[in-house]
Amino acid sequence: MLDKFFTPASVAVVGASRTPGKVGHDILANLVAGGYEGEIIPVNPAGGTMFDRPVYARLTEYRGQIDQVVIAVPGQYVLDAIRDALGRKAKAIIVISAGFRETGEEGSRLQSEMADICRRGGARLLGPNCLGLINTEAKLNSSFAGGMPKAGSIAVFSQSGALCTAMLDLAGKRHIGLSKLISIGNKADLSEIDMLTALARDEQTKVIVGYLEDIVAGDEFIKAAEDASNRKPVIILKSGTTPAGQKAAASHTGVLTGADTAYGAAFKRSGVCRADTFDALFDYATAFNMQPLPMGDRILIITNAGGPGTMAADAVEKLGMQVTALDRNVSTALRSHLPAAASIANPIDVLGDAGPDRYVAALKAAQADDQVDAILILLTPQAMTRPKETALAIIEHMDGSKPVLASFMGGKDVMPGRRQLAAGGLPDYESPERAVAVLKAMREYAVWRDRPPQMVTRFPVNRRRVERIISRRQRTGKLQLGEVRAKNILKAYGFNILEGRLATTPGEAVEIAKFIGFPVAMKVVSPNIIHKTDLGGVRLDVASSQEVEDAYDLMMLRIWKQVPGALLEGVYIEKMADPGLEVIVGMTRNPQFGPMLMFGLGGIFVEVLKDVTFHLAPITEGEAVQMLKSTRSYEMLKGKRGHKEVDIAAIAVALQRISQLTTDFPQITELDINPMIVGEIGTEPVVADARMTLSPLKL
Amino acid sequence: MLDKFFTPASVAVVGASRTPGKVGHDILANLVAGGYEGEIIPVNPAGGTMFDRPVYARLTEYRGQIDQVVIAVPGQYVLDAIRDALGRKAKAIIVISAGFRETGEEGSRLQSEMADICRRGGARLLGPNCLGLINTEAKLNSSFAGGMPKAGSIAVFSQSGALCTAMLDLAGKRHIGLSKLISIGNKADLSEIDMLTALARDEQTKVIVGYLEDIVAGDEFIKAAEDASNRKPVIILKSGTTPAGQKAAASHTGVLTGADTAYGAAFKRSGVCRADTFDALFDYATAFNMQPLPMGDRILIITNAGGPGTMAADAVEKLGMQVTALDRNVSTALRSHLPAAASIANPIDVLGDAGPDRYVAALKAAQADDQVDAILILLTPQAMTRPKETALAIIEHMDGSKPVLASFMGGKDVMPGRRQLAAGGLPDYESPERAVAVLKAMREYAVWRDRPPQMVTRFPVNRRRVERIISRRQRTGKLQLGEVRAKNILKAYGFNILEGRLATTPGEAVEIAKFIGFPVAMKVVSPNIIHKTDLGGVRLDVASSQEVEDAYDLMMLRIWKQVPGALLEGVYIEKMADPGLEVIVGMTRNPQFGPMLMFGLGGIFVEVLKDVTFHLAPITEGEAVQMLKSTRSYEMLKGKRGHKEVDIAAIAVALQRISQLTTDFPQITELDINPMIVGEIGTEPVVADARMTLSPLKL
Repeated sequence: MLDKFFTPASVAVVGASRTPGKVGHDILANLVAGGYEGEIIPVNPAGGTMFDRPVYARLTEYRGQIDQVVIAVPGQYVLDAIRDALGRKAKAIIVISAGFRETGEEGSRLQSEMADICRRGGARLLGPNCLGLINTEAKLNSSFAGGMPKAGSIAVFSQSGALCTAMLDLAGKRHIGLSKLISIGNKADLSEIDMLTALARDEQTKVIVGYLEDIVAGDEFIKAAEDASNRKPVIILKSGTTPAGQKAAASHTGVLTGADTAYGAAFKRSGVCRADTFDALFDYATAFNMQPLPMGDRILIITNAGGPGTMAADAVEKLGMQVTALDRNVSTALRSHLPAAASIANPIDVLGDAGPDRYVAALKAAQADDQVDAILILLTPQAMTRPKETALAIIEHMDGSKPVLASFMGGKDVMPGRRQLAAGGLPDYESPERAVAVLKAMREYAVWRDRPPQMVTRFPVNRRRVERIISRRQRTGKLQLGEVRAKNILKAYGFNILEGRLATTPGEAVEIAKFIGFPVAMKVVSPNIIHKTDLGGVRLDVASSQEVEDAYDLMMLRIWKQVPGALLEGVYIEKMADPGLEVIVGMTRNPQFGPMLMFGLGGIFVEVLKDVTFHLAPITEGEAVQMLKSTRSYEMLKGKRGHKEVDIAAIAVALQRISQLTTDFPQITELDINPMIVGEIGTEPVVADARMTLSPLKL
Repeated sequence: MLDKFFTPASVAVVGASRTPGKVGHDILANLVAGGYEGEIIPVNPAGGTMFDRPVYARLTEYRGQIDQVVIAVPGQYVLDAIRDALGRKAKAIIVISAGFRETGEEGSRLQSEMADICRRGGARLLGPNCLGLINTEAKLNSSFAGGMPKAGSIAVFSQSGALCTAMLDLAGKRHIGLSKLISIGNKADLSEIDMLTALARDEQTKVIVGYLEDIVAGDEFIKAAEDASNRKPVIILKSGTTPAGQKAAASHTGVLTGADTAYGAAFKRSGVCRADTFDALFDYATAFNMQPLPMGDRILIITNAGGPGTMAADAVEKLGMQVTALDRNVSTALRSHLPAAASIANPIDVLGDAGPDRYVAALKAAQADDQVDAILILLTPQAMTRPKETALAIIEHMDGSKPVLASFMGGKDVMPGRRQLAAGGLPDYESPERAVAVLKAMREYAVWRDRPPQMVTRFPVNRRRVERIISRRQRTGKLQLGEVRAKNILKAYGFNILEGRLATTPGEAVEIAKFIGFPVAMKVVSPNIIHKTDLGGVRLDVASSQEVEDAYDLMMLRIWKQVPGALLEGVYIEKMADPGLEVIVGMTRNPQFGPMLMFGLGGIFVEVLKDVTFHLAPITEGEAVQMLKSTRSYEMLKGKRGHKEVDIAAIAVALQRISQLTTDFPQITELDINPMIVGEIGTEPVVADARMTLSPLKL
């Protein structure tokens, strides 16, 4: 798909220069120095030769085939250069030049034009405002980044050119081999979606690493990322998460970063392993690249000192994984290989004077034990320690059956060992805590990848009815749906609504209440009032005709005083709900990722503790149950403080029905069921109050 | 105090050896190679010479003065060697040899004997089972650790010898200078307390770094640590925090690690900066050593690329600090020094082609601006970037008025710059996130150090009355105090107790209820029943004589059925409390650190959310208020969901009174006021239920 970017037969550099330090020089120099074996075509009006190659004054003068064109000329000449490239049937265009969307409106316009021209010309465009790209396998360095990295199987793409160079530099320092490095810049055409799609299919790439500040299209991103994650691990650092971070992103790249919650939900859905720090990117990538995934979360620690073993065990527990003992038979067998003072519990302490043999004995035992899912080897440099020999011996006996990570702690003394580990495919970290964080990331990815196939349930619903309500409201421009209409919609989607009717006079209210049976709930109905309770618009447990009549009149009187001119349609008279636990089920539509479902316990749990969880629709039953379990207050659902356990499955069904409703009707932009009252197992939850917001009718 | 350890005039090595790799050889070699200018006295029965020095068969044969004796002989000869050393009036004894407390009971006994002998002989003892110590200023390396570290002003002590070597090795790699390095081993005599006391007064030491697995005496630790923290920053990594970690510590060092909550409270009280990971130890130490403390939490970021700037801004916000803009005048002045495309918001983006001059302009502006408390400089290696020159220019213009930290991101390209930063006293980190974490630690220490002096309030109380109740109960061995007696004690300490009396017959109950006035609360009184509510032993809002009579009989009948043989003393009849918010105030006495006060909101907040905070007694008013504010549910106290704001000051007073009570009476080992009912501002909180546990009488 991106062949002409990664393996072109020829590359032209428009704006090639003789002056070191100029971008046009560095690109040409990189292409030549990298050992690229295709045709290299320097273009510069001055002509002459560069790097022993003839320079063409204009691209159109070159008569051979041109696959890739790298453009590094001042902004105002870029469009002409692109036209020349398209005239020569180039399929891959890389615009290094800056001065487009990041500079404002006029730049944005130029950038769009650039993309349009390329699309019409049948070419793809990388950039503008990017560093270029590198494909180590093809010895292609079409970038002005430093030198050619070591070849390997980690692919890196980055929205920030500066981070691209920093990662390239860091990869060199850590001896990490890269398959591809792509700076995607302003993403006028090619974006993270294309990168994920291409790199997922790239045979040289085992792990994909990305840095993003925004995402061009949420739906497509999720599809591409999920597909890629199913094939290989995808690790992404997404910045601009907090308000201040977002401000920085906005002022620097001219993009509006999405809300972090939505990104979190999107990454979770698509199996993306999210790196929270710059360090974590390569920490994770190295392990994913070198080691198999753990089949469980039982971590065995091997150490030559108690302190670091304890630190690692602390970290394992903190991240919710397990420090389990060796199988009894295995530990008995190991005992004969270790001195009496050694500990064969977990951590296995091979003692301070351990040589390679003891490490190997412990490693073999751990590899043989079915109760161990991953192995962490710690080494501190003590008097008798031989880091290099130990590293070599460990590598020799690593059988690849489960992940092995290491932390050889220290500096100069352990360095020869660390180098051997890196060369031998054993990821090594400066501290036990970092190694444990990596194991956690590997485990989470493994769980996602091995998730059971789950179908989204489709419930039988009355879709036509909802269509009618929505289109009528959209036509009249009344986009806020109050309790009555929101409940009608929910009823059509299978929700349990209490018996009730709108009364427009006190007398009617009494009649309805008598028909339903006392006690009743009374709630004002008005398009101008959203928070009914705050204005005294809700009365519960109204027990007699007299009370209903009084409540009606008082409600009208008082609300009218507080919101003069409000349109009061009447009062909704409703059967009182049986007591139960109050929960909130809601949805807000994220501009990038679509419907984000929300769940939380009602009252203080939402208002004070903000204890809610999110998930992107459509949602499966398993995912819905997981949403409930992810709240801090989950125990409340299981029965506490005099409550019996509530019907958790019924809440999960409610979430799935909301998922179906908001997937069926993109017109619904917000929805709240607050509260939904949930009773004991076997009872139906009841929608006690609800509201929705619709999008305006598109003309 | 530890002069003979740090600056001895002569050092004897008992167990000196000619064989490289043997501990007795390495210590001698280190002493010689380190350049120590005092007398070095090798002792070995074989005699002869080592390193051109005469070897004495026994320590007693040497006739000169011996200040320090390092013992590295097999365990069984250690006591004799110590006796010889004491006979020669040595004042500093270092036992390298292992085989003592860490091996079990017999080893523990030997270790105690060793400590006793030294104490009687007027000498101090370091170890056993340690690495020795290093004092760079005196060129003294009395250890078998690697070579002599670079001299500097960070002192390191460690309970784990292995971590000592790892830290020494790491310090070398990071070019960090050390003043002292002390391996405290099994702490038979000298412990972390002595280290804190000595290093706090050590003029060569500006920052103290420690690794601990346990603490020998909580009270003294807090005193020593607080005193040290008042003089200089103390950074401690304490392992064994989680259950698995604790197990590892127990099986490895034979010590029982204290509960993590108590350590957290102790560190907070004494101003210790807690490192959560191995990386963090030197991350923090370097910055504390090189830079002034920030006067506030407003961080200014300078970067040559948007991405890293965003990452740093994210990290600042996540840790609760501020990314604030430059003062308007300052930013206007800066504008003229930067290209038009540069951002002068925060982060200041000096752009990808920035040379040293732009960094300097931004740094000067930030240093001049009163609204900036700390500066973080980020650099990524781009085409025009000159890391080394930039580092030099930054260092030259750093005025020391506020902390400046850096993250030069990448590998080989930025390394020359990173080396300049380290040499120039500017702490540099591999990622922006790590640098921001350091700023947070610096800020927290600064806040602690500048804390306003606060007095612990002493309330007038009836101490004699409590003394009588407690001693009577201790004498009779009834160590569980139920509601009635616990309330009597609390009343004596100024708590508001509802009017109530014990009834022993239904008739008496009715009389009391009539006297108090209906409705009343009724609670069973029995030494055998702790959780009254669970057994139906509590009835609230009992409204009439008939109901009181019925409730009394039913309570007795039913509890007797559930707990046959329980001693039922009667039923406590109490005035009903006015409605309010339920909170818990409690105390558990930690064996190391004494009374740990607890506060939380009642009900689900404690039971489901475990939302409680702790603080060591004695507590000041400010600290008590801080405890309340640290709960997640603090907002509830400020008024939510129909509640008015409650009297927060009154809760703080209750905590202070409990602090006074449990400081006055070490006999109280546990105390719960659950619930205490708190009303609106101006009302007195009421103790609705309480219980206490006493320690057995010491005979």
